[in-house]
Amino acid sequence: MNIRDLIRDIPDFPKPGIVFKDITPLLADSEALVHCADQLARLCPTDIKVDKVIGIEARGFILGGMIAQRLDAGFIPVRKKGKLPSKVNSKRYGLEYGEDVLEIHKDAIKAGEHILIHDDVLATGGTAQAVCELVEELGGIVVQCNFIMELNFLKGREKLETKVASLLNY
Amino acid sequence: MNIRDLIRDIPDFPKPGIVFKDITPLLADSEALVHCADQLARLCPTDIKVDKVIGIEARGFILGGMIAQRLDAGFIPVRKKGKLPSKVNSKRYGLEYGEDVLEIHKDAIKAGEHILIHDDVLATGGTAQAVCELVEELGGIVVQCNFIMELNFLKGREKLETKVASLLNY
Repeated sequence: MNIRDLIRDIPDFPKPGIVFKDITPLLADSEALVHCADQLARLCPTDIKVDKVIGIEARGFILGGMIAQRLDAGFIPVRKKGKLPSKVNSKRYGLEYGEDVLEIHKDAIKAGEHILIHDDVLATGGTAQAVCELVEELGGIVVQCNFIMELNFLKGREKLETKVASLLNY
Repeated sequence: MNIRDLIRDIPDFPKPGIVFKDITPLLADSEALVHCADQLARLCPTDIKVDKVIGIEARGFILGGMIAQRLDAGFIPVRKKGKLPSKVNSKRYGLEYGEDVLEIHKDAIKAGEHILIHDDVLATGGTAQAVCELVEELGGIVVQCNFIMELNFLKGREKLETKVASLLNY
């Protein structure tokens, strides 16, 4: 199945000069949706039992739950500032365009748990690196960061000190 | 499986006087996560083929993808203003606390398609009603709105002109 054909370029979003990779046609295709979740779960290291899958708000939530099911793991949302209701750890990080804060519940991870981090796109790696740090501050062990797609020219993979996997490269 | 024990009350979130129902312990439990998706898919009418499942940003994304898989349906994100990259239809709506705008891609639904709408909580019904209107403006037919939980005292069910299902009532 060629999922690349289901990702469309949207020029000048969210800012002039940026070409946004829109995954909504892929998500809308029932077979492609399942195929992506299957493939992302298969990319995960098989020698370690993943305890929890983190989905990064918001697009990382969609496949995050589906991947968690395939790995018999729980799901943890990492969210933008002020969205999680209980006690959180926070991390400020640089984006491809701008800066933001991500948060995780302090009780989301027990020390020693193995964590898979999922998001739709690896761009500069700032977001994923911030989430890795949040996991490690809670005593978790990042098994892998996985993505539907990776924007190679932004070299995000070089920033991450963990295993990285993606289905598509641009 | 008693999923009610995995939903915790967080007092005074997001505002003083509000008791927030936090589903993160449920999501973190691998068996409860799958159980919820299974049960929500089973609540769906069986006499109509669902073409697409809408998840409402952001918590509706987590189980939305999982429900879509169970119904062999595609997934459509309905998002907050400015988040979807292509051409959108917008709808302003009243919340339990405040007002907001939701958007859907204009090409997300073909006329006559059967749509299931999923979110985590039915509160006043303002959000779900806005999404029903977005679906109908694109020629879609809402089969059901389903939720992990329903806050009965806010009477959201009375506002919705479609079938409503939920796993838990408060």
